[in-house]
Amino acid sequence: MSGNAHGGFSYAEMSRTLIKDCVVVPVTAPGFFTGSVGVEGGRIVLVADNAREEDRRRVEEFRTAAARGPGSCPPREMDGRGKLLMPGLVNTHTHVAMTLMRNMADDLPLMAWLRERVWPFESRLTPGDITVGARLGMAEMLLSGTTTLIDMYWHEAAVARAARETGIRALLCPSFIDGERMSGFERDLDETLAAAEGVETLTVRPAPHAAYSCSAENLRRAVDLARRHNLGITIHVSETLDEQRMIRERHGCTPTEYLRDAGVFSVPAIAAHCVHVTDGDIEILRTNGVTVAHNPQSNMKLASGAAPVARMLDAGVNVTIGTDGASSNNDLDMWDEMRSASLLGKLTAADPAVMPAWEVVKMATAAGARAIGMEGRLGIVAEGAIADLILVDTQKPHWYPHNNPVSALVYSARASDVHTVWVNGREVVSGGRLTSLDTDALMRDVQRCVASTCVSP
Amino acid sequence: MSGNAHGGFSYAEMSRTLIKDCVVVPVTAPGFFTGSVGVEGGRIVLVADNAREEDRRRVEEFRTAAARGPGSCPPREMDGRGKLLMPGLVNTHTHVAMTLMRNMADDLPLMAWLRERVWPFESRLTPGDITVGARLGMAEMLLSGTTTLIDMYWHEAAVARAARETGIRALLCPSFIDGERMSGFERDLDETLAAAEGVETLTVRPAPHAAYSCSAENLRRAVDLARRHNLGITIHVSETLDEQRMIRERHGCTPTEYLRDAGVFSVPAIAAHCVHVTDGDIEILRTNGVTVAHNPQSNMKLASGAAPVARMLDAGVNVTIGTDGASSNNDLDMWDEMRSASLLGKLTAADPAVMPAWEVVKMATAAGARAIGMEGRLGIVAEGAIADLILVDTQKPHWYPHNNPVSALVYSARASDVHTVWVNGREVVSGGRLTSLDTDALMRDVQRCVASTCVSP
Repeated sequence: MSGNAHGGFSYAEMSRTLIKDCVVVPVTAPGFFTGSVGVEGGRIVLVADNAREEDRRRVEEFRTAAARGPGSCPPREMDGRGKLLMPGLVNTHTHVAMTLMRNMADDLPLMAWLRERVWPFESRLTPGDITVGARLGMAEMLLSGTTTLIDMYWHEAAVARAARETGIRALLCPSFIDGERMSGFERDLDETLAAAEGVETLTVRPAPHAAYSCSAENLRRAVDLARRHNLGITIHVSETLDEQRMIRERHGCTPTEYLRDAGVFSVPAIAAHCVHVTDGDIEILRTNGVTVAHNPQSNMKLASGAAPVARMLDAGVNVTIGTDGASSNNDLDMWDEMRSASLLGKLTAADPAVMPAWEVVKMATAAGARAIGMEGRLGIVAEGAIADLILVDTQKPHWYPHNNPVSALVYSARASDVHTVWVNGREVVSGGRLTSLDTDALMRDVQRCVASTCVSP
Repeated sequence: MSGNAHGGFSYAEMSRTLIKDCVVVPVTAPGFFTGSVGVEGGRIVLVADNAREEDRRRVEEFRTAAARGPGSCPPREMDGRGKLLMPGLVNTHTHVAMTLMRNMADDLPLMAWLRERVWPFESRLTPGDITVGARLGMAEMLLSGTTTLIDMYWHEAAVARAARETGIRALLCPSFIDGERMSGFERDLDETLAAAEGVETLTVRPAPHAAYSCSAENLRRAVDLARRHNLGITIHVSETLDEQRMIRERHGCTPTEYLRDAGVFSVPAIAAHCVHVTDGDIEILRTNGVTVAHNPQSNMKLASGAAPVARMLDAGVNVTIGTDGASSNNDLDMWDEMRSASLLGKLTAADPAVMPAWEVVKMATAAGARAIGMEGRLGIVAEGAIADLILVDTQKPHWYPHNNPVSALVYSARASDVHTVWVNGREVVSGGRLTSLDTDALMRDVQRCVASTCVSP
């Protein structure tokens, strides 16, 4: 393990690397090929298909230091045989510090769960606790191949700290609701912007909580702040039927219409959930270029409903995948979430041909990159793209026989198959182990933290 | 690895073992405790709660050879700290050799999937292929903590061979449909009975395929055979709306009513799927003591529908969990299946409080044991019960913080957390590796087998 746990990564770790003879799922187009991929200085500089002679020649050039000019050394070579290389997964909706509440309160009616467990626990959390919970969730995500998260919570500067330590890419979204938390929001946003300043892997967006918890005035304030800092907005939209009913009673429209009228979609926006949306809502999401963060497992576990994902995709909405927080999931496992997205999508549409594996892999990678304004630069294996990559071990019984690897990624792969993970070219997981944090020490920290803040069941 | 790959296990491996200071989920009652469990000669002989002084004394007695009389040696001791001990999982519905078709044909309409992919592939399978596919599926199941499977296919004697080699417990169900396959069925049944003869871990049941594929005459023939050999029946029931409609048109009743009238439920029966069942059907299942094998992921992937599991449980039906075959899942992972059962159950009932973790763990263990007539003797951690046990590693980020371990088993545990597995007291998985088969050689065998039988996409 690195001794550099709290200072972030040094440049020395971003050396030239050649991953040879792996199955590559590039996501730039359907399908896969056997090839080799070269990384240098945080970027993908070579994507070669073994079947093409010209590509094989370029691999040889990359291998020989001479071709790189004086002072250049040969790349580190990794044997990719029996492994699959693809873009890192993008988890577009979570509350990472809620890992502290994992398996603490399950199988309860929604309001009992919130009032008796979630809110009392959250009211005791300090920024230090949030950093510990964020470290835990980020460790879990990196180990399972998630290289980017979109996080919505309070004290996001404390989350930024954990992201810098672990090396994960993050869009940090300080959240607010009307009333007491509103006062701290602007300070929270400023602190988060300061914490992310100069860190290439961190960006920030204000996150009004939801249509039912934020007044039109406060929504407009958040949009103004977003515009002033040239940022987007992240928000919960139409998670439950209750929300739908409440907004209809208060404002005579759907939550999506209400948010549009408050200007929320006039900046780049990510709408989490969108379980109960009308055809008109879907049209609003599409025409405003709003990204939907679909959270199938959380929606099932809380019995919120099943989002009409196949319809939204058909309409041309950018639909992505999120795990939501670990208190309603109870893990941050994007493999599980991809599988659930496909299976629930087929069930909901009553059609086994919708949500095919290829589409779901794209939702969890390239579409997630588009959500954070990095379309074409992230979430793909292509020359010039950012090296957020994962290498997956396919030499396991549940991967056999080796038929279609894209199907395998959605229908039989597991989080534990992730072998090596790079974020911005940095190797943050190596042979299934974190390079940045001592996970044993982290688990002890977490247990100590919960013992002092936990609300006994 | 053992050099004993084809001869089954020797008695020497069934030595006295004491698993110390683990979290025990006994399934005999809700909850868990920290304790120690002793195994000897295939049976659980000691279940001790560390909180009880009397139990701590009994552990000391078990440890000291003197207490066992002359010739007895001290047990092998395993440190269970950071681990969880529970009954092995019971997969009550699969077609294990279909692992050969994993990731071969996905995201297709049902009839195209069957006619263009599944049936042409199956028509080429030899008994030798079926043994290879069964070895693969059993390796996957044992490594992920499934200690019993209920298998329905043709050439079940070839499946029996793989079960003897791998050491898994199996209920083997030779299947038939009207027409050509009917002729081979009785021979298949006889061969399977012969293959299971004298093997404590193997039992047999005839398996008419379904109401829509078997005439009342053939169903009665299967029931007569079952009765003659003192066996039960396994059958698919009400998997799709098409089936429901077809039986309604042909016979003017539901599939469940049709099967009852044909006498299928007059012997112990396992009904796989039961997606589309009426209140009357549920009453028939309950009064006849029929076990339901619920296959949530297969039902979602094929867009068959969502079984009314909470209603069936409420009515007192014995509902268990199965993965179905790997061509419609695409893995044999009971952890995934438990999670899907709970989440889909909550969504279907529109109630987050139904299908609590504890109920789901019971469905995957004790209820499965009841399905095969072993209630109270299997699927629980209790003195006198059969030692089908699994030890799960909880020292991983996705298990932290350590809150309710029963919730963790359903909502955050993974197949890859399974550390050690015993079937009938034999250690068949040790430190995450199979003791009976060389998995690398097995994966090569599988790829060769598929290359020669596979229907190219």
